[in-house]
Amino acid sequence: MPSYRLSDFIARFGGELLGADVEIQQVATLEAAGSTQIAFLANPKYARQLAETAAGAIVLGDKARALTDKPRIVAANPYLYFAQISTLLNPPRRPAPGIHPSAVIAAGAQIDPSAAIGPFVSVGEGSRIGADCVLAAGVQLGADVQLGAASWLHANVVVGDSCQLGERVIVHPNAVIGADGFGNAWTGEAWYKIPQIGRVLIGNDVEIGASTTIDRGALGDTVLEDGVRLDNQIQIAHNVHIGKHTAMAGCVGVAGSTRIGAYCTFGGSAMILGHLDIADKVNVMAGTLVGKSILKAGTYVGQYPVQSHEDWLANAAHLRRLDGMATRLKELERKVGRFDADQGE
Amino acid sequence: MPSYRLSDFIARFGGELLGADVEIQQVATLEAAGSTQIAFLANPKYARQLAETAAGAIVLGDKARALTDKPRIVAANPYLYFAQISTLLNPPRRPAPGIHPSAVIAAGAQIDPSAAIGPFVSVGEGSRIGADCVLAAGVQLGADVQLGAASWLHANVVVGDSCQLGERVIVHPNAVIGADGFGNAWTGEAWYKIPQIGRVLIGNDVEIGASTTIDRGALGDTVLEDGVRLDNQIQIAHNVHIGKHTAMAGCVGVAGSTRIGAYCTFGGSAMILGHLDIADKVNVMAGTLVGKSILKAGTYVGQYPVQSHEDWLANAAHLRRLDGMATRLKELERKVGRFDADQGE
Amino acid sequence: MPSYRLSDFIARFGGELLGADVEIQQVATLEAAGSTQIAFLANPKYARQLAETAAGAIVLGDKARALTDKPRIVAANPYLYFAQISTLLNPPRRPAPGIHPSAVIAAGAQIDPSAAIGPFVSVGEGSRIGADCVLAAGVQLGADVQLGAASWLHANVVVGDSCQLGERVIVHPNAVIGADGFGNAWTGEAWYKIPQIGRVLIGNDVEIGASTTIDRGALGDTVLEDGVRLDNQIQIAHNVHIGKHTAMAGCVGVAGSTRIGAYCTFGGSAMILGHLDIADKVNVMAGTLVGKSILKAGTYVGQYPVQSHEDWLANAAHLRRLDGMATRLKELERKVGRFDADQGE
Repeated sequence: MPSYRLSDFIARFGGELLGADVEIQQVATLEAAGSTQIAFLANPKYARQLAETAAGAIVLGDKARALTDKPRIVAANPYLYFAQISTLLNPPRRPAPGIHPSAVIAAGAQIDPSAAIGPFVSVGEGSRIGADCVLAAGVQLGADVQLGAASWLHANVVVGDSCQLGERVIVHPNAVIGADGFGNAWTGEAWYKIPQIGRVLIGNDVEIGASTTIDRGALGDTVLEDGVRLDNQIQIAHNVHIGKHTAMAGCVGVAGSTRIGAYCTFGGSAMILGHLDIADKVNVMAGTLVGKSILKAGTYVGQYPVQSHEDWLANAAHLRRLDGMATRLKELERKVGRFDADQGE
Repeated sequence: MPSYRLSDFIARFGGELLGADVEIQQVATLEAAGSTQIAFLANPKYARQLAETAAGAIVLGDKARALTDKPRIVAANPYLYFAQISTLLNPPRRPAPGIHPSAVIAAGAQIDPSAAIGPFVSVGEGSRIGADCVLAAGVQLGADVQLGAASWLHANVVVGDSCQLGERVIVHPNAVIGADGFGNAWTGEAWYKIPQIGRVLIGNDVEIGASTTIDRGALGDTVLEDGVRLDNQIQIAHNVHIGKHTAMAGCVGVAGSTRIGAYCTFGGSAMILGHLDIADKVNVMAGTLVGKSILKAGTYVGQYPVQSHEDWLANAAHLRRLDGMATRLKELERKVGRFDADQGE
Repeated sequence: MPSYRLSDFIARFGGELLGADVEIQQVATLEAAGSTQIAFLANPKYARQLAETAAGAIVLGDKARALTDKPRIVAANPYLYFAQISTLLNPPRRPAPGIHPSAVIAAGAQIDPSAAIGPFVSVGEGSRIGADCVLAAGVQLGADVQLGAASWLHANVVVGDSCQLGERVIVHPNAVIGADGFGNAWTGEAWYKIPQIGRVLIGNDVEIGASTTIDRGALGDTVLEDGVRLDNQIQIAHNVHIGKHTAMAGCVGVAGSTRIGAYCTFGGSAMILGHLDIADKVNVMAGTLVGKSILKAGTYVGQYPVQSHEDWLANAAHLRRLDGMATRLKELERKVGRFDADQGE
């Protein structure tokens, strides 16, 4: 494992060195770090751990600069700085370029010689795989798929016909890009399948989690702009448009044709209904169902609070009678207000 | 790309031609369509787009027949009609019949010569694959699986031992049919796995979305009747029975042994608990948790409304005290009622 | 199919025989069982079915011993006893040991000769597969993966680099263990990916459902202790720790760094936010969002009750005004209390 001195980090990423220019081999948490490891403090809540850490060095913010005597780097954004160090110390295990003999590459598919194509991969007709791409074992690409340079599809990812992914896109195992959207017309007796003839278009620097599914458009395309980050088990329906740098935590669902702005965040399990508009810089908290458009930046919530079972039984029953309670409250106000009047107030 | 005239569509699907019998090459939305494309108007809400569209022709309903001068087809169900045109214009890219040399077919498995078996497919002992079926790359079938004619399993789909799928069934990538259900008995110290010895039985014309999972029965079978439509990321537990033509949007979960009727619809992320009965023609809206049987057709909801974070903080706290509020309201009514009496009302 | 007498079961599993020592070939439900099958009664609710069953024999508890004259076994835990019989009668179809010729095993990977490695399996460098393991078709293992004896990975499961699974672990199709966690630092302009350098460590006797995803730790490890049971479509984020014998139903999500105790249960679709502590023996009911730590054993709920659409429209609107209702109630109490005082009560 290569090692670096703190001054090497500063030469690359900036920041200010305080204390000895020690050698660092790995990143770790304040709790777990040893003498050859560097930890970080971004949240003052963990300052107590700083006092007890055995880390060889610390990355911290300007306000925390005096909280320890250890060798340290003062950085404007300690969490980001730490991530940059970690990236330097932990380059991904990149397979060697070349096409595994078991892979099935259709005639006419173009694969850059620097790309690494693993075992049991299939690539359909007309597909183009850019420089330095990695297709791990079991990846299945349809026809006319385009994959920009340095993108990495992990094991068993499926990409359907005609979908396009940009550069440096990462797709985690078992994700599916470009399955048919869910479109059915009712004949009066049965559902009739609507052909899904759009594509999925994904920009640069997008990351897509394990078992996430992104459906192709019904007529137009499903679009993820640059820098979008999707966690695991997310469902993006047909014709959804997600603006740049929007991030979604695990198990989120977005129904068809909804248009989500840039720089939004969605907590885990949030569900966004179809044909809505969500403005830029909207934060939707975990577990929230968004049933109408949100046209203004801000934080939105719809979480039912957890309670003990006994309390919930006592309280939740009234939810079914809130309208009755509201009516009774109004009636009381009418009467009591009149008493007020009667009594000369 | 083949092209058709409006009169070709009418010969196939009925409807009334108004205006010129133009040539059409593709379907598109009102917004995106060009002069060789046909669009549709099903929802009067989009009538404004009709005025502005560059589409070569329109499918619309009888009430909208006079809303444009363009070449048009008047149809009883414009959305369905449009879907039929799209199906005609967009036949799926069907792989050629035959078994890819990399596929592993167990001795004794029967595969119709018209079926197309892709690379890296395995088919277990005793399985039977009907005419015109497609098994895309990476599909893994267990033993004694039956697949009716013209069914299509997309890439990396898994079907477990002894499961049966009907004719014209479509299963999207990475779906899993026939994994073990979740059955555990508590020994007093640990969970003991209950063998899951039932099957999954799927009727004709069923469509199953990407990454959807349908577990085999514990003792009896899990059943999806004809025409059921499941979107992506759905979980169907063991011994669930779903009646014909019921449709579920993405991320729905149905717990074990629940019996769902025919012609139901479930919005995204709805969760149906176990051992319930849901009648025919029940519509459950998105995000709703169904915790008791629904014995009457109709629309059911349990959505917590989204609010700004500030409003939610102010309001949600009272949910934990609703029972107290109800008691106080009753007490007020008792008192105020008495005032009424005291004052001779 | 082998058959057993009731006395054979008693010799293995204990219990008391009442009636004839009949021969049994299979397990079934009370409703479906025939004369060569054994059923069970664990819940008195189904006692009526006992009267009507055609089963050849019954397993039941002591209190129910006199509810039938049929051949029967009285057991302390009839459900567990029945499961043990079912396991005896339904051994899994175990593939023969050996490595399928299509599998790609990296140089240096160690595979016990008793293990069964299916078609299209890849095993990375340094990985070790224990005795009697089964890797079904399409399983993809990274480098340095460890798999304890008698573990079974079903079709298309993916396990990432350096993850460790104990003995007798079962992983159902398309599950993903060890994908990158969702870690991003904001640069001011875009998300910067945090390397995920931890592992997933899974104990003995763990079962993991189809399409479930368990992310590797960011710095430390994600841990599932012995005996944990996870259903399908579950998302376990990075650095989560799940105590022994905890069970989660389908579609549950657990966000990063949350620590869950032993002997807990989580109903379907429950969502647990990040950085929380959940004590031992906590039961969280289906659909509940847990947004704060739970430090005491017990049952917790946060379910919005389902209603007819009309009732919901009438009631849910007041949720947005609960704070106003609470204020008005307080004001009424102030006034009415004063009336009380005014009138000398």
